[in-house]
Amino acid sequence: MDALTLIKTRRSTRKFLQKAVEKEKLEQVIEAGRFAPSGGNNQTTHFIVIQDTAVLENLARIARDEFAKMEVTPDTYASLAKSIKLSQKGTYVFHYNAPVLVLTANRIGYGNNMADCCCAVENMMLMANALDLGSCWINQINWLNDNPAMVSYLKTLGLQEGEAVYVSMVLGYADTPDGLPPRIIMPRKGNPVTYVG
Amino acid sequence: MDALTLIKTRRSTRKFLQKAVEKEKLEQVIEAGRFAPSGGNNQTTHFIVIQDTAVLENLARIARDEFAKMEVTPDTYASLAKSIKLSQKGTYVFHYNAPVLVLTANRIGYGNNMADCCCAVENMMLMANALDLGSCWINQINWLNDNPAMVSYLKTLGLQEGEAVYVSMVLGYADTPDGLPPRIIMPRKGNPVTYVG
Repeated sequence: MDALTLIKTRRSTRKFLQKAVEKEKLEQVIEAGRFAPSGGNNQTTHFIVIQDTAVLENLARIARDEFAKMEVTPDTYASLAKSIKLSQKGTYVFHYNAPVLVLTANRIGYGNNMADCCCAVENMMLMANALDLGSCWINQINWLNDNPAMVSYLKTLGLQEGEAVYVSMVLGYADTPDGLPPRIIMPRKGNPVTYVG
Repeated sequence: MDALTLIKTRRSTRKFLQKAVEKEKLEQVIEAGRFAPSGGNNQTTHFIVIQDTAVLENLARIARDEFAKMEVTPDTYASLAKSIKLSQKGTYVFHYNAPVLVLTANRIGYGNNMADCCCAVENMMLMANALDLGSCWINQINWLNDNPAMVSYLKTLGLQEGEAVYVSMVLGYADTPDGLPPRIIMPRKGNPVTYVG
């Protein structure tokens, strides 16, 4: 697949088969993330790669419990409001029961922490597409960055003192009729361009 | 080039030939940026593509003048400190005299503004590599997001009310012996990985 096709056919996968991702493919996805650029070439992005079913269930439960306690106000970001409402109904699983959840953490206070993690996740989503794997951006962990229950559990998974999770991603085989991630190219209606000169 | 090679060989270019980028190539780079994911599929990233030499000179001058007024403290992010010190010497050109500077702006207050712009810029840098063009991430405009002189000038270039620039990128033909962007794969010493399960 040429680069532009790879980029244009990447779409979010939110239904996954209960099938593990091969070690070799997973390592290529993580490698793609590790080769993202970083501010001043700092290379402080920390990848926490979770495949343990019990851990994934714990994360879903903690997120559900903690979101359920939150209130939706007119200023709440629409996607966060959705997570809160679904959690209050009691059945919310933020990671779509994907077989792999990758957290990207970075140093609190480092100027490019968020940017570096975003580039790493974008690289990993493109690599997933190249390997016929589905993926989806996940914000729910970083929305709980100040939540003591979530943060203390993340520390048992390897999150270091002075680090926070800035972006996450789910990964796995898409549950689609042809077994491939959804690849219809959706034309962009927004994302305007202004040319100067 | 396969996807992993494309990703691993992307490196920053900081010396450019004084040669315009062909319209067709530039449009492919911008298209790659427009097809980045966005939070809730909002598609509010605004690409401002600058090729006018006078405008590029004005931006360099405003940035230099404004950085020169700032003070470096022990808490200043290292890369910003460098911009300030070089500006105080009076010769700083933050965009490396590249023929193209692409600003990515987004809505102030929108929860994924920074993330969406970062993904767009990462896509554009990968697309540049695929087209044998050099590119480099640029933070200097977003470091001046609260600076009245810079913001009022950006508004003359098309920045809308309620928007701010979150990331920028320079683009052009690399000034290298073989005319290609630097592509030595630099092994990652950092970016650690923790596997759970």
